[in-house]
Amino acid sequence: MGADDDEIMTAVSRALRSHGYAELTMQDIADECSKSKSLLHYHYDTKEDLLVAFLDQLLTDYEQRIECRADQPPEQRLVDFLARFVFTPDDGDRENFHLALLEMRSQGPFNDRIQAQLDRSDRLLRGTVAEILAEGIETGRFEPVDPDRTAALLVAALDGARTRQITLGDSVTDTDDTYTRTVVEEILSQIVDPILAEGSLPGLDATVAELDRGA
Amino acid sequence: MGADDDEIMTAVSRALRSHGYAELTMQDIADECSKSKSLLHYHYDTKEDLLVAFLDQLLTDYEQRIECRADQPPEQRLVDFLARFVFTPDDGDRENFHLALLEMRSQGPFNDRIQAQLDRSDRLLRGTVAEILAEGIETGRFEPVDPDRTAALLVAALDGARTRQITLGDSVTDTDDTYTRTVVEEILSQIVDPILAEGSLPGLDATVAELDRGA
Repeated sequence: MGADDDEIMTAVSRALRSHGYAELTMQDIADECSKSKSLLHYHYDTKEDLLVAFLDQLLTDYEQRIECRADQPPEQRLVDFLARFVFTPDDGDRENFHLALLEMRSQGPFNDRIQAQLDRSDRLLRGTVAEILAEGIETGRFEPVDPDRTAALLVAALDGARTRQITLGDSVTDTDDTYTRTVVEEILSQIVDPILAEGSLPGLDATVAELDRGA
Repeated sequence: MGADDDEIMTAVSRALRSHGYAELTMQDIADECSKSKSLLHYHYDTKEDLLVAFLDQLLTDYEQRIECRADQPPEQRLVDFLARFVFTPDDGDRENFHLALLEMRSQGPFNDRIQAQLDRSDRLLRGTVAEILAEGIETGRFEPVDPDRTAALLVAALDGARTRQITLGDSVTDTDDTYTRTVVEEILSQIVDPILAEGSLPGLDATVAELDRGA
């Protein structure tokens, strides 16, 4: 990725936040950067090509962030993974981005190349959690559970929490907690803590703050 | 609801399965029943009016089905609730319907009247689970948990499992289990079973079979 590509990917992200997926045009993306629409078309034949490249980049970045933390103990890695799903209140920009991704997912089954990236995302998320759990079980930090099935449960809960957060923008209780925060806290206390072999989990707040600082 | 309304609502459901939400037209709906497009417009000014009426009917039906089971013990009611989220393999018709609803949800935040029905759906689902849990806690069948927060976790996991099922059509493991079935089984074993005060949970398979028979 050169600086040009970086700029284009940032423009795609901004355009998705502003316009959503279904009605996004190459012109909308060009409007968010210093490139002309014809230059975008020179690099990417179609809007679909550009969106596939964008998803590919997003997932590659995510893979790298996960790998950077691979030397941490498994319970810290798991809390890190979960903390990334916590939305802060009024995080409208992030909500709009995920709303566009949700729109893309609802239309993904009708587009093979988008679908392939969505499949990759699913495998990456579930595979990461399963790998963390398997390592923790092997080193005696977690009780033996089925890593794949537990990963499916955790990823489903996180995905569902995010979908409800972005489509309803609602908090669950009378507190200021976002839907995603409530669900991540309950995942930690009702699913992860019971399979902890010994010791206690790293704090969620400290982990969210550390991730916010770009760690 | 008269017979006419029933027929129209069935037509909306069929048209959503075939065409999705974004590109659905009144003509698509008319094509699925014996009514003309102009008759549909006589009853419902706009496509939005018809879709709001459809969602309203869907939720009212769901409320009635929940109420029919209100005299069952809470652990049976909870298994019933969860069992309704289990998709069978190759349940393409049902997947297409929920894919259209997902599309609607991703565009819901931009439409107040659709959004109001989605809010109602969220409150109905979470409220039902919280009410079942609260009753079970009061009668000593469940350990004391926070009903609202546990309901948020369960509904998020079910919603996320369904979204992954319909957008990825993937099973989690090498078995024939659908994504939704795996997640419901893990919810039962990792979240519900641990809060059971005594006895064991009703079987999922028997409950799914009973619901399939239209109970």
